[in-house]
Order: sequence, then structure tokens, then C-alpha cells
Amino acid sequence: MPHLKHCLAALFALFALISTVAKPMTDQLLPVPQSIEKGQGRFRLEATFQVAVEGNPDPRIYSAASRFLRRLDGRSGLFFPQDYVKPTDLADASDLLITVSRPGSVALGEDESYRLVVEKKRIRILAETDLGAMHGLETLLQLLSVDEDGFYFPAVEIEDAPRFAWRGLMIDSARHFMPMDALKRNLDGMAAVKLNVMHWHLTEDQGFRVETKSYPRLHELGSDGMYYTQEQIREIVAYAADRGIRVYPEFDVPGHATAWLVGHPEMASLPGPYEIERGWGIFEPTLDPSKEVVYEILEAVFTEMAALFPDPYFHIGGDEVEGHHWEQSETVQRFMEENGLADKHALQAHFNQRILKILTKLEKRMIGWDEILHPEMPTNIVIHSWRGRESMVAAAKDGYQSILSNGYYIDLMQPASEHYLNDPLPKDVDLSEAERERVLGGEATMWSEHVTPETVDSRIWPRTAAIAERLWSSAEVDDVRDMYRRLDTIALQLEELGLAHLKNRDMMMRRLARGYDYSALEALADVVEPLKIYRRNADLSYRSFSPYTLLPDVATADARDALRFRFLVEDYLANPSERRQQAISKQLRRWAKNHDAFEALARKAPAIREALPISQALSDLAGLALAAMEREDPFVWDETTEALFEAARQPVAKVELQVVQPIEALLRSLEQ
Amino acid sequence: MPHLKHCLAALFALFALISTVAKPMTDQLLPVPQSIEKGQGRFRLEATFQVAVEGNPDPRIYSAASRFLRRLDGRSGLFFPQDYVKPTDLADASDLLITVSRPGSVALGEDESYRLVVEKKRIRILAETDLGAMHGLETLLQLLSVDEDGFYFPAVEIEDAPRFAWRGLMIDSARHFMPMDALKRNLDGMAAVKLNVMHWHLTEDQGFRVETKSYPRLHELGSDGMYYTQEQIREIVAYAADRGIRVYPEFDVPGHATAWLVGHPEMASLPGPYEIERGWGIFEPTLDPSKEVVYEILEAVFTEMAALFPDPYFHIGGDEVEGHHWEQSETVQRFMEENGLADKHALQAHFNQRILKILTKLEKRMIGWDEILHPEMPTNIVIHSWRGRESMVAAAKDGYQSILSNGYYIDLMQPASEHYLNDPLPKDVDLSEAERERVLGGEATMWSEHVTPETVDSRIWPRTAAIAERLWSSAEVDDVRDMYRRLDTIALQLEELGLAHLKNRDMMMRRLARGYDYSALEALADVVEPLKIYRRNADLSYRSFSPYTLLPDVATADARDALRFRFLVEDYLANPSERRQQAISKQLRRWAKNHDAFEALARKAPAIREALPISQALSDLAGLALAAMEREDPFVWDETTEALFEAARQPVAKVELQVVQPIEALLRSLEQ
Repeated sequence: MPHLKHCLAALFALFALISTVAKPMTDQLLPVPQSIEKGQGRFRLEATFQVAVEGNPDPRIYSAASRFLRRLDGRSGLFFPQDYVKPTDLADASDLLITVSRPGSVALGEDESYRLVVEKKRIRILAETDLGAMHGLETLLQLLSVDEDGFYFPAVEIEDAPRFAWRGLMIDSARHFMPMDALKRNLDGMAAVKLNVMHWHLTEDQGFRVETKSYPRLHELGSDGMYYTQEQIREIVAYAADRGIRVYPEFDVPGHATAWLVGHPEMASLPGPYEIERGWGIFEPTLDPSKEVVYEILEAVFTEMAALFPDPYFHIGGDEVEGHHWEQSETVQRFMEENGLADKHALQAHFNQRILKILTKLEKRMIGWDEILHPEMPTNIVIHSWRGRESMVAAAKDGYQSILSNGYYIDLMQPASEHYLNDPLPKDVDLSEAERERVLGGEATMWSEHVTPETVDSRIWPRTAAIAERLWSSAEVDDVRDMYRRLDTIALQLEELGLAHLKNRDMMMRRLARGYDYSALEALADVVEPLKIYRRNADLSYRSFSPYTLLPDVATADARDALRFRFLVEDYLANPSERRQQAISKQLRRWAKNHDAFEALARKAPAIREALPISQALSDLAGLALAAMEREDPFVWDETTEALFEAARQPVAKVELQVVQPIEALLRSLEQ
Repeated sequence: MPHLKHCLAALFALFALISTVAKPMTDQLLPVPQSIEKGQGRFRLEATFQVAVEGNPDPRIYSAASRFLRRLDGRSGLFFPQDYVKPTDLADASDLLITVSRPGSVALGEDESYRLVVEKKRIRILAETDLGAMHGLETLLQLLSVDEDGFYFPAVEIEDAPRFAWRGLMIDSARHFMPMDALKRNLDGMAAVKLNVMHWHLTEDQGFRVETKSYPRLHELGSDGMYYTQEQIREIVAYAADRGIRVYPEFDVPGHATAWLVGHPEMASLPGPYEIERGWGIFEPTLDPSKEVVYEILEAVFTEMAALFPDPYFHIGGDEVEGHHWEQSETVQRFMEENGLADKHALQAHFNQRILKILTKLEKRMIGWDEILHPEMPTNIVIHSWRGRESMVAAAKDGYQSILSNGYYIDLMQPASEHYLNDPLPKDVDLSEAERERVLGGEATMWSEHVTPETVDSRIWPRTAAIAERLWSSAEVDDVRDMYRRLDTIALQLEELGLAHLKNRDMMMRRLARGYDYSALEALADVVEPLKIYRRNADLSYRSFSPYTLLPDVATADARDALRFRFLVEDYLANPSERRQQAISKQLRRWAKNHDAFEALARKAPAIREALPISQALSDLAGLALAAMEREDPFVWDETTEALFEAARQPVAKVELQVVQPIEALLRSLEQ
């Protein structure tokens, strides 16, 4: 039966990916460095391995080097002599010497370059700043290789630096609260793939997630008790800075703000009372731009927050303001008339200008979703493009800096390849050199409607590594198959940081299967994906407290076996071989008989019964294809076939089958 | 190949344990309630399920009932209408009605009893306090059953209350620091098996783990930056109280105190400087009882800590004071002479009396390891027995209250059965009724020399559930096989609380196997156990920063397949059957051929190469037994046999094989 370890092994074998005993790991680097020159020989990793740092670094490099040592001994099992890497460690005694010219500043545009030289007897990392040196340590860990004598690093010389300065992940702690440990392990994952900014979405209709001392009713009444204390905010900011990662907050106003209004209904455009929103979607409650109390509270809160987040950027959201409550409010309407504000856009721009004054006083630079772009706004704000690349291009032409998230919405459960090929600055983009420089980079966005602390890692990883590579590596690095090959390796390495993208999946299947053998469930989970884009909740069945513990939550984007099978069929059709044909038949045979086992399991595990029709559809299609392959005469696409495909295309239990297209391609090829 | 899901399934099948579609879960309860009366019919769990609370509870019951709902929908996949259980929810509309007479106090001796009545149309939990009601909710979750129509609760009437009032788990955050999330998920695990006190070991030679405002050098220099802030301490205390669990701290003095001396060498018996200890063992540095500064600092620190921990008990350690530094200190020797203190015991008693004064002023009751028992100490202290049951009995006779940890040292990697049969008050104990009442209960102790955040859950669970049952259930509940049967079920349920005892094991094997198929590694890991008692570090090879990521860390006590095989052989020898014989042969055949696969994996995975000899030994023994079973004539125990057994008994790579005894028994049976 398919199972993670077997599947991984199969994947590796199939693509001939992972380094074998004789193969060094230079081809496993992710993101791909700007320049790699392979050398001769091997640096042998021994139990005497020692690290030293020289130069003038920020002390964070010592923690980073110590963490590096622990990950290296965790993998290799070697008992190194060093407890911590310390300033007193001697360069002469070191096997790995890290040389840093000056302390790095965890700020946009800081030098992050590094040079990594592995020679037979010595490894050196040279960098202007400790931020670059930390990237070098991650690259070195990815190089760890194995041969008959044990672990080694292949001789190599790498020169590396990022293509974009802003390489981010947005985490939405508001819709589903994300506990501290979830944030920390994801910060570690970010550092491992050289991302350097966490955008923290802290308020929403569904929750106000940070302690405020000036207006404590905001978090006390707006969070169900699930908020970060100010000490915890500082802890996350420090944890991230230790890994070279900036953290900046988003306080989404004037829409997406119901949670503010639970404790402070006087901020609303219409009288309350308001309750924490439990559903998903765009909601009406909106701050009232005509009321001074709104700015008083915002100024007090933002002043507190500005002190917690040292980063100069401050996100005000600004998206999806539909303005219905503004239309219904007489005072708002009067205010618009009195101030000559023609429409809701003008009113929002007016609001934003007031906010801008507050932020400017706090020495913060405003960033907001592309709706904040308005001729009245000065060009020192940053446009965060989510609705389309066009707004990013328009912003750059108008003199605004911008970052791209359109195409990086990882909550939509699209394949990594989609995100990977989404270049912020494709060759053919119609921008001058100066305009191109205004495009700072991009951010993956982990909106959390359908994401819980249990599943968030499997939504972020490994796909976000593909986005990290797009933002770090050269635009020419764009081989999708090669990206997927390396994604499998990085997925395993990310586990050592505590990320639960693989292990929670097993746990969730054990729960669903109530301790019974879950092979049949896993076989199905490996070929279905959660409904994509916004289709999962088209029937509005989900609320914030719904069980996200079912098949669509076990399933991930890039369903493992479906992806593998698609590549296999593509290769077979392009270049048929006996071996490939057998591999296809073997897989089809497994699927064809899986439904019986699934049905038997479902009798004991009611929570998977809803998925019976899609399990049936998988077995039916596989059986059909198997029979067609075994027949001598051409396949005839008849009504029965059509009916089976029709059934297989239906979403069931909030998932859809991902092998319909390759099986169809296979059958079409058998028609002649 | 053996694998978790298959093995669990096999276990279930073998013991015919888990509820089948037709079987309710009343026989899965752990701890076993004091009284169960099975009723007629089933309460059908529907998506309309609602909970209400009536009476006069502490508000914590609403959080507990809401968490109950989320675990119930997480398992069942049903979309319940309630976001949170609230005081406004109407009893009449409820399917589960919780009735509580008064707010419970999270304090020793509080009423924890409950009555749970499941009828066809209604479930009721009735309890004097919300603490009892929360126990009832855990019992109800364990009752969740399945039939062809879905999930249900079997009709039943349960009356329940604990046998002992003090049912604890000690967590050692000092030797290896345990992060907040590790503590929280283990508190959830404790609540699930009705444990009610966490003893928090916060200082050691290896670390001073709590922020102190009066003497900040203690945590700043004594912790490598790994300490709990006072806000975090409060967070843990509140999290535990919300689950009905007391938390009290241990500050181990005057020994086990090196970490205090790094920042404050003036407290030491001999001049410093001192460094944080990296090794494991009993160390010389000791506080100097003759110096007033020692009491000044202790009073300031204890005063801060007394405010953080509302529980009246306060543990001062007091164990393993060897006194060598006292012997070497002239001032200490002079002090002893001047005060007529005959020996180190008298000196420690003098020290303890000074501490007692401080604690008494702080309204705390002193508790300490059995070394603090001394004729000069008053009987209002509590003796924590670790060296042997005798000291507990002696303490009770002398008028002291006591708790037992001897026999509950889960760090020693002994089987659950050992702990399970260790009754604090066996029938034949020579104590009067009044003396017996002084025995308050017991605590499992998770000393963390060889335990990291990655492995701690698999060291605590599921074995600690067996101890929890010993402390809660009647002394008559003592069937070891039945305990193991239920332990498998509870192990799965504990996963839903985030506990990583199962999933981290898989992750660690993936890391060791570098992504290759790890079946052969798992087959070995399922029959070996880490070296027990104090043998693992007999060669002093481990230090605090050593890699705890290898085979002995993947392996657990009660090695799954070994335990299963032992029971199988026992049953077979007692009552031979064709079916049992075949099961034995099948298992032996797998082991016999496992070494080839293990060897192939080891070529690609150097970190497991050290274990090659024990893998070889397993295959050799299994091959020998297999051949003997297949032969017609009696087995002859010759020198070759002896040599193979000799090899199989050798510890290798810090583990030892657990199937030697049953295979020997099998072969001995074939000698006739």
C-alpha cells in the first residue's frame, strides 16, 4: 500500500533525485545560488568538527552557528566537542571559519550576500554581514552528503546574493489564531529557505490578536482570549531578528475590522452592538472616518504597536472596503458632503491620509493593499499588490514602491509550479530600469480561513520554498520538474526545525481511521486536493470553529501520488518504454483495488464515509485505464467512459481528484 | 514490513482490543472508574449536539466544555452549532448537561468526584465541583464509539472519584530546557488521564530556568538564555489551573545548584568561578550554609517565586548532597564546630531549618526529597520519597505526610508494567489507618538528562497513563495485559492534544534514513529499548548538547513488537495453537530477513551504522528460532546457539534487544 516512506522512496527512485552514496548534494540547493563552482575532493565531517567566527559580527551569529552545529550533529549523530560557538573560539582551531565584516542590520536592503568555500581541509564562509553568513550556514547544511565513509561536504565555491530584497511570508493570526510555537517553527523554516520578512496579520473581523494597554477592551472582548501579549510580540520580533528576519504588523482598517468594534462600537459607522465574526467572507462593519474617536483610538494603538515593532514598515490593510455601512450612515454621508468627498474611494483616501499623519509622526512608512493607491496619496507609501500584477505595474509607473502577493496566495491550494513561475519582474514587463527598482519583491500569504495550527505547516510547506526561490534566485532558474525534485528534499530537512507538515498528516489520518490501518485513506489522500481558489467554502458551510480535521485537511496542494503519476504519464506519452508502462500499470492496479479497502475502513471510521464516492471514482477510473492498457485493440471512449469521468470530476467531501487529466491523456493515447 | 499503522492494527487484532463496529468503548476507559454500570441503548451523536452548564461552577468549566466540543468534532467531523459553551446556553436545549454545585479550588484534597449518566436521549455530568466535571468530560470522550450508523455514546452510569489526592508528573526543565508548548501539551495529556499536579523542577547544575528580578544574574548567567519569564510562569500556572492541575516549583538546594553559582559564586562553599555544568551526574558545587548571603538571596528569590505559584507547596529538593566541598571549606568546618553540627546531615538539617523559616513566612509548606527527613525537622513538611518505599513508610510512621516517586522514575525507561504494579499503599504495608492517610499519592518523574523537547513526549506517554491509573483507580485494578491493551488506545487519543510521542518518532526515523524507506530501521526500533536505569551514560559519553537523535532516542520503553511478541510466545507456550505458531513464524521470518534491508539502508544512512551488530543479532536469533520451529527433531542448545545469544544480549549503540528472552523460552520449549 502506498505510504509516506514508500512514496518518498518511490519519488526519489522515479526521478533519481536524492544524492546517492556517491553523489554530492550540490544539485539539491534551494534556493539555487547565483553561482556554483564545483571543486575537487571532499571535506570529511568528523566528530572533532569545530566552528569559529572572526571579524566584527552581530552576536546573533554565535546563536546561529550554535544552532547550525546542533542540526549538523542531529543529522549526523556525531558528538561534537562544542557546546556553543563563542567569541573566544579560536579561528586557527576551526574547521569552519565564518568571517564577517560588520554587524548586519535587520532592515530592508541590508547586504545579505555570502561566499562559501568548501575545501578538503577547511570550510570558510565570508560575508559582509552576519545576515549573509547565516544564509551561508543554511546553504552549507543543504550540502551535507554521504558516501561509504560517512558524511562529507563536497568541495565547492559558491557566490550568492538575493535577487529581491523583500522576500516574505504573511501569516494570518487573526482568522485562526496561531500559537507562539507555530510562529517560531515557521520563522525557522523561513530562514532555512532565505526568506527575510514576516508580515503579521493581527486584526480581522474574526479577531483582534494583540494586547493593547491603552484600549484593553480591544483584545479582551475581541479575541476569545486568544491574543499575543506585548511580551510575546517582543519575543517573536527578537526570535525573528536572531534569524535575520524582519517582522512588521498589519492592522487592517477601515474594513475587516469587526473585532475592533466588539469592545469599541463607538468606532463603527453604524450603531452596534457587534460580535466577533464566526463566518468567512467580506463583512459590512466598517470604521467611521468621520469620527475623531476613531483616530484617537488608532493613534493610541498604533503608538503602542510602533514601539513593539522596530521595523519602519507598518501595514494598514485597506482592502475590500465595500462601504455599505457608510452609505447607510447619515453622519458619514453628511461628512462626505461637507468635505467634498465624491465617493467611497475618496472617503477611504481621506481616512488613509489621516492614518498617514499618525504613522509619519511615529516614523513609520505606510504599506497597504492595492486599494490604498489613490492619486491623493504621496509616493512614499508602499503598495502591496494582491488583486493583480497590473496594480503593481501601475504603482511602479506612478512612482510607488511595491511588493507582489498576487500569484503567491498559498491559501488557495494551487500547485507550487503556479507560484514558482510567477515572476514579480518577468523579462517582458513594460517598466523602465528605475521603475523596475521600485518592485521590492513579494510575499506568500497564508490566509487562515481554512487553516488551523494543526494544518498550517502543510499549507505553507514545502510550497513556500518554491516562492522563496523565485524571490532569491536568478529569473533563469525556472525548471518546474527540477524545483519539485528539490522540494522533496527540502521538505524532509524542514522537519528538523519542528515543522509538522509531514508528521501532522499522519497523525490526522490516525485520528480519522481511529487507530485502524489507514493505508487506504492515505492512498486516496495522496491523489486528491482540497477545493482550490474560493470553492471550498462556496456553500458557506465553514465557520471559524468548524472541524478542520477531515480529508480536505489531510490533503495538500501538489498531491504526492497525483503529481508523480502525471509526470510519469507525460514521460511515457512523450517517450514510451516498457519500464514506464509497468510503473503506470502498477499504480493503476493499486488504485483499482483501493476502494474495497477504503470501504472496509469507512465502516469502522465514520468520519471518512463522506469520501466514499470519490474513492469509488478513483478505483473506477483506474480499473478502466488498466483494462484499456491490457487490451490489444484501440480504446473506445463511450458513454460509460464519459459517465465515469463525469463522476470523477465531481468535488466530493470538499476535495477533488487530481488524476483525471493524466488518466484521460492515457486513454486518449490508446484510442488510435 | 512492520510499520506503525500496521503494527497498531496488528496489536489491536492480536489482543482483539479495540471496539469494533458493534462494541462500545466502556472497556477502554483509562483510568478505570470506581464504578461502571452498563445500560441499554445508545446516545446517537448528531450534528445538532449541544452542551450546557448549570449550577454554580468556576468559569473554567466553559473553556473545558468548549475544548471538549472541539475534540469531539475533531474526531467525528460533525459540524456542531456551538462556537463556545457559555453561561447563557440553556439547559433545556442541551444534549449534554453539566451540573456543578460550587467552584472547585485547584488545591490538594478538593472534591474531584463526578457522576456520568449516558441515556438514549440525554447525557448528564453531575459533580460537586467543576474539577470533577472536567474529569467526567474526559471519561465521556473516551466512551465515544462507532457503529454502522456513525458515532454514539453507550448508555452507562459511572460513579467516580480518585483513590489518591496527589497524582503528579514532575517535569525537569533544568537539565534540558522544555519550551512552553511542550509543557502545555503535556498538561493537556495529564488532564486527559486525570493527573492533577505538575511538579516543576526549575534549577539544576545545568540550568537556572526562571527569570528573577531581585537577582537577575541567576537566570542571565545560569541558563544559556533558556529560561521562563515570570509572565510565562504565570501563563503555565493559569493554563494548568484551567485544567484543574496544581503547579508547584522545585528549587533544588543546597546541592544540584551549580547554575546558581555562575552568577553568584559568593553563595558557594568554595571559591569560584563556576560554569554551567554540561555533563550528567552528581556534582560537587554546593551552597554554603554558613553564609548569610545565601539566605538573603534564597529569601529574595523564594519571595518572588511564592508570588508566582499560588499553590501552598514548595519543593526545596535537598537530594544527593555529598558534602565534599563542605569538607574542603574551612569556614564551613568552623561553622559546624561552633554550632555543634556533628556531620553533613546535621548541617543540611540546619540549612533546611533556615529555609523552613523563610517558607513559613511566605505561607508555603516545604516539600523535599527524602534526604530532608531528619529528627530536627517538624512534621508539617512533606517527604517526597525517591530512594525507596521504606523512607515513605518511615515518614508516615514518624507523622510526616509523603508522596511516592520511587518506582515512578519514567526516565529509567522501564516498562509501564513496573510502574503500574508499584502501589503506594499495597495491602500488606505495615501502617495504621492514620498513617496510611499520610500517604498522599505519587508522582511520575521525567528527569531530562537524556530527554529533549523532541523526545520528551515519547518518554512520558503512554507510560505515565499507567501511573495515572495506579493513583486514581482502585488497587484491585491490576491486570497488566489489560492495562497494555488500553494504553494503545489512549496513546492514539493523546495525539489529538498535540503530543508528539508517535509522530516525532516517524520524523526522527525519516531524518536518520535521510528520506529513504525506513522500514528496516523501524523494524529494529520496534524491538530494542534504550539502556535502562543508569546504564545509558555509564561511559559518560553524553553531555547536555549531545545529539539525542539516534536509535536509542527513537526507541522507547515497551518496544512495540517486542512486547507483542512476548505476549504471543507466552500464550503459545501456555496454550499452543496452529494460529499462534503461524503468527510466531511470520514475525520471525520478517526479523530473519530484516538485516539485509537494514544493511542496505545503513550504506546510505551513516547515522544508523553503529547499530549494525544488533540488527545482525536480531536476524541471527530469528533465523535460528525459525529453523528450530521448522525442524521435526528436538532443538539442541549448542555452543553456536550460546554464542548467538551472547551476542544478542550485548548492548549496542546504547540500546538492547528485547526479544532475547521470549526467543530463548521458545527454543527451550523445543528442546524436548
